[in-house]
Amino acid sequence: MILYSMPTSGNSYKVRLLLALLGRHDVQRIDVEYLTDALEQAKQQGRLPFGKAPVLVLDDGTLLPESNAILCYLGDDTRFMPQSPVARAQMLGWMFWEQNQHEGVIAVRAALRAYPHRRALATPERMAELLERGHDLLQIMEDHLATRDWLVGDHATLADLCLFAYTHSAGARGGFDMARFPAIGAWIERITQLDGFEGLE
Amino acid sequence: MILYSMPTSGNSYKVRLLLALLGRHDVQRIDVEYLTDALEQAKQQGRLPFGKAPVLVLDDGTLLPESNAILCYLGDDTRFMPQSPVARAQMLGWMFWEQNQHEGVIAVRAALRAYPHRRALATPERMAELLERGHDLLQIMEDHLATRDWLVGDHATLADLCLFAYTHSAGARGGFDMARFPAIGAWIERITQLDGFEGLE
Ligand SMILES: N[C@@H](CCC(=O)N[C@@H](CS)C(=O)NCC(=O)O)C(=O)O
Ligand SMILES: N[C@@H](CCC(=O)N[C@@H](CS)C(=O)NCC(=O)O)C(=O)O
Repeated sequence: MILYSMPTSGNSYKVRLLLALLGRHDVQRIDVEYLTDALEQAKQQGRLPFGKAPVLVLDDGTLLPESNAILCYLGDDTRFMPQSPVARAQMLGWMFWEQNQHEGVIAVRAALRAYPHRRALATPERMAELLERGHDLLQIMEDHLATRDWLVGDHATLADLCLFAYTHSAGARGGFDMARFPAIGAWIERITQLDGFEGLE
Repeated sequence: MILYSMPTSGNSYKVRLLLALLGRHDVQRIDVEYLTDALEQAKQQGRLPFGKAPVLVLDDGTLLPESNAILCYLGDDTRFMPQSPVARAQMLGWMFWEQNQHEGVIAVRAALRAYPHRRALATPERMAELLERGHDLLQIMEDHLATRDWLVGDHATLADLCLFAYTHSAGARGGFDMARFPAIGAWIERITQLDGFEGLE
């Protein structure tokens, strides 16, 4: 298997984190960073069906795009996939919420600060609106984690890895005020202590 | 079971469509339309964990938010869920893409045109940008469907129902030029002919 992976991106990091936690070293990596030839080449060769990384290439050539779908594929039948149908639906709920709400605010604000080719879009109004919306979204996680160690059930699932990707760097990269969210802070700490944990870079 | 459902919303319609296709009439519906007391009440009673509809309430009171997670829960072990792990991952890929890309452009442009409380946000620049991005996203579906009847495998899956919700009304509601996308048109027609099909309103 081959993983097209963007080194600085949380969406790609999710998959690398799962592979590290599972101790899997059988997946070859091709790095496709923004503004590099490697990214353009991967697109031109049709390896990124939606024009984005990550993409997992199976041994028969099948292309699997979308970070969270890749997590479900690689995480199936592992300790990160809950057994009960209800818990699986709750896990997927967090993961769809991440793609629909969290990523479009928390990750986007970080990207507007980080990538030079995006800075023109980072108007003060836009940055202020993203800050406010991000704090509201983080408050949803904070309230949930105030009485729980993990997003779903009593151990880490794919939902925790998924949301860790952009939440753990929301302060340093996104400029969000993480001191308001102590339960998120404790949850981040808990994830970094999982066996086999690897950081973003 | 109870479904909190917004009558005019594609995200809620996805779930109603699956229930209709499965011939399930055992799910009670509570309508929560924008700008109604029912919506405010559902929020205040804590029935919408992420502040949005749809939410499925199980008989033991468990709340399942997120339309696509509800589809996976209700569609598990039905003909709309592929058997093979690879096909399931491909199906989920389309569904995460829908939440991350398609919904935030196609549905948002339609909402900016439809809901009076949103019109102030519908600046000409924003509407033009959404139009262009929407056509690019629809082109991805068009290219895929040009050689296939269904998004994944050889019959309808949850991915088709999911993407049907906002694609079938992208012309009339969103103002997208659907004449450019004949393969999408044929796929829409195919879905309306599924046994038990029900329209949006
Ligand atoms: N929904 C996708 C989003 C992936 C995504 O946005 N990838 C970005 C980096 S974070 C990318 O590859 N961008 C390349 C480009 O747009 O040219 C996922 O979760 O995998
Ligand atoms: N990702 C969610 C999105 C749901 C959503 O955006 N629902 C809107 C209607 S389309 C809503 O309930 N809005 C109520 C509000 O924001 O007050 C899903 O797929 O279920």
